Amino acid sequence: MEEKILELLGTKDYSALKELLSSETPQDIAQAISRLDENSIPVVFRVLPKELAAEAFVEMESAEQELLIKSFSDIQLKQIFDELFIDDTVDIIEEMPANVVKRILKSADPEKRKQINELLNYPEDSAGSVMTTEYVTLRPAMTVMEAILRIRRTVVDKETVYTCYVTSSDRILLGVISVKDLLVANDDAIVGDIMNTHVIYATTNQNKEEVAREMAKYDFLAIPVVDHEKRLVGIVTFDDAIDVIEEATTEDIEKMAALVPSDKPYLKTGILEIWKNRIPWLLMLMVSATFTGQIIKSFESALAGSVILTAFIPMLMDTGGNAGSQSSVTIIRGMALNEISMKNILVIIWKELRVSLLCGIALAAANFIKILLVDNLIFKNNISMTVAAVVCITLVMVVFVAKIIGSSLPILAKRLGFDPAVMASPFITTIVDAISLLVYFNIAKIMIENL
Amino acid sequence: MEEKILELLGTKDYSALKELLSSETPQDIAQAISRLDENSIPVVFRVLPKELAAEAFVEMESAEQELLIKSFSDIQLKQIFDELFIDDTVDIIEEMPANVVKRILKSADPEKRKQINELLNYPEDSAGSVMTTEYVTLRPAMTVMEAILRIRRTVVDKETVYTCYVTSSDRILLGVISVKDLLVANDDAIVGDIMNTHVIYATTNQNKEEVAREMAKYDFLAIPVVDHEKRLVGIVTFDDAIDVIEEATTEDIEKMAALVPSDKPYLKTGILEIWKNRIPWLLMLMVSATFTGQIIKSFESALAGSVILTAFIPMLMDTGGNAGSQSSVTIIRGMALNEISMKNILVIIWKELRVSLLCGIALAAANFIKILLVDNLIFKNNISMTVAAVVCITLVMVVFVAKIIGSSLPILAKRLGFDPAVMASPFITTIVDAISLLVYFNIAKIMIENL
Repeated sequence: MEEKILELLGTKDYSALKELLSSETPQDIAQAISRLDENSIPVVFRVLPKELAAEAFVEMESAEQELLIKSFSDIQLKQIFDELFIDDTVDIIEEMPANVVKRILKSADPEKRKQINELLNYPEDSAGSVMTTEYVTLRPAMTVMEAILRIRRTVVDKETVYTCYVTSSDRILLGVISVKDLLVANDDAIVGDIMNTHVIYATTNQNKEEVAREMAKYDFLAIPVVDHEKRLVGIVTFDDAIDVIEEATTEDIEKMAALVPSDKPYLKTGILEIWKNRIPWLLMLMVSATFTGQIIKSFESALAGSVILTAFIPMLMDTGGNAGSQSSVTIIRGMALNEISMKNILVIIWKELRVSLLCGIALAAANFIKILLVDNLIFKNNISMTVAAVVCITLVMVVFVAKIIGSSLPILAKRLGFDPAVMASPFITTIVDAISLLVYFNIAKIMIENL
Repeated sequence: MEEKILELLGTKDYSALKELLSSETPQDIAQAISRLDENSIPVVFRVLPKELAAEAFVEMESAEQELLIKSFSDIQLKQIFDELFIDDTVDIIEEMPANVVKRILKSADPEKRKQINELLNYPEDSAGSVMTTEYVTLRPAMTVMEAILRIRRTVVDKETVYTCYVTSSDRILLGVISVKDLLVANDDAIVGDIMNTHVIYATTNQNKEEVAREMAKYDFLAIPVVDHEKRLVGIVTFDDAIDVIEEATTEDIEKMAALVPSDKPYLKTGILEIWKNRIPWLLMLMVSATFTGQIIKSFESALAGSVILTAFIPMLMDTGGNAGSQSSVTIIRGMALNEISMKNILVIIWKELRVSLLCGIALAAANFIKILLVDNLIFKNNISMTVAAVVCITLVMVVFVAKIIGSSLPILAKRLGFDPAVMASPFITTIVDAISLLVYFNIAKIMIENL
């Protein structure tokens, strides 16, 4: 699409450009626009039909949105923002510098400005921050016919009409009814009689990831959000829920890989910013490896006498790290998906204990055979049976310790109110490294004479 | 809820049990049932109203489904499966042993059996395998009034009615129209005039994760699936798309942590099965660490002369591993989210090159200060300036190599048709370990006399 846009821009054939873009989706237009140079973006944007322009605007990255807002007159700004849903407006405002925010708020009419300010006040991680205030409400006394008429009249301004909320006159949430239910019912049935009164709802201050996962569990198109008096104040729609889940998962993955989470796409992030996301953990983990080094240092004289022991350090450290991160990542993901909670901790430790012994013994056996066949027969390293025994016993113990720590630390972290994802691979690797070496050298000291 | 169920089971108060369960969601009922003992499950299931029973059945784990099917008479089996949507039936069948599958297929009427068999034939990762054949089709010549009437007549049997598909008489997909569009339109408008003809669709053999991500991108409730002649054969609904994305993400995370992916929840997996998911990579990575050991072995005499060099091995290996996995995980997640593709490889390498130098230099500087202050001043390790220089220069090179390998390997893997997630942390750690040590010892040899 970009080539065609560039071609039509070159020949200034704006009517052909308008026709080309009119049949595209807002998402694809936003993507194409993001690849144009800064001067062409406002030009292309201006040929879009009003509604499509607003839809494409919502899908853009904040850098392009800011660029466009700066190119708008106050009237154009108002036209675009009047087309947007409240929750999208709030999302955009949250990323803009103060002077741009001021202009946007000034362009909104007082009622809308009040709603925007209310939504901006919810904490960043709350359901309130991702909800929209545009939904369909019905009254319990309405007939199905009246309900459908009401939907038909208001449908244009609502983000979703497929789930309708039945409220009392003081906005208390009484029930939900889907358009599907309304379509199968008789025209003169009463909404209050056929609505579902077992409503699953979220509260404004509930964690947004928790709410999104709840929606995914129940296959909801939308979930109602109520305040502390059970008054309906908004809804979260499934498209926002998917975004919340994707973002939370990316954050977890980043934390597990020792990165400071960032919500900017990689290709749009500057190298200084990438550096700032990476250096803190690298530094911290580097410094904490000092202790591991110190352990080696304290066995210096022993190692000078049997340098072959050094050759097994990388294998023991790596295996410990891998065994630990297998367990920690399994548990962290299980907790994110609500499959595992604090109350399972004993079951988990008992399971990991048995799995770690199975893994450790299998690895030790394989390693023993490897030492005989590869190290001694092929590489002629002449590793003594005593050293082989030290390495294999250490292996069993390292895998055991790694899996117990790897599985219990994330659960304990969550219990203490920390983010379990931070307790993943790199952190656990550092702990397991130190323990592995201590175990290794002490077993060596006991088993090898004159060490 | 479980306590209440157990209480009512104890007093055999089945009508109270029925009332309790009738107001619960199928998901919560399935969850509660999974915690009961094997004998109580069929008893509780039998008190559920027919439709709710079918809905709860779909939400259960395969172990409980199999247990229930075995407790059903042929008539009960037919009753439950007649209530299910085709795609849910197929999902269940895929997890059942052959004799159970035979019973299910035998209970279905010929038309349904044919549809089930067709869906079973699609490859496991394809859009065809997750689609349903129950959707609403309209004809272009219908009026809006006729379309709404058709929807109202067929709504009960369709998984979603909110997106309707307009087809020709030979089932070619011509357009889509949402119930929202129909509700705002005039009763006598013609569907063919107001439908959206720029249809985004999937093909039966397309990868299901790709299709699910496409749906998330466009905020679709459902996407039409066509065969190679553009005939509509099914739709994928948003709830299945969310499941596909969640499963694919869990698989990626598992692969990145050196686990063989499994789609069973951790708490329901036996220890032998967990062992089988973990041991292959542990073994493979352990054996490949042999090469790292061999590198140390070949510098044995040098190390015997300067054991202090050994003390820095864990720090260099860990930092290399962390730096590499930061890059690989960033790139793998970016590819999964379609933010990064093969064509960005040069941009990425150029970016990583600069970031790695920034990280490497910062780490080297910090490490130099740490050696002076911590190692020499506090621990009195007396590390010479030459050794400190060797360590710091190695650090810069290790971070550089780790980040370049970590960012390019996943992209190359994808290019060659492998799964990029496998190229994550553990694999890259092993490669980076070997390279780190080679660099380290060679720099040491050059810079330290008599080594």
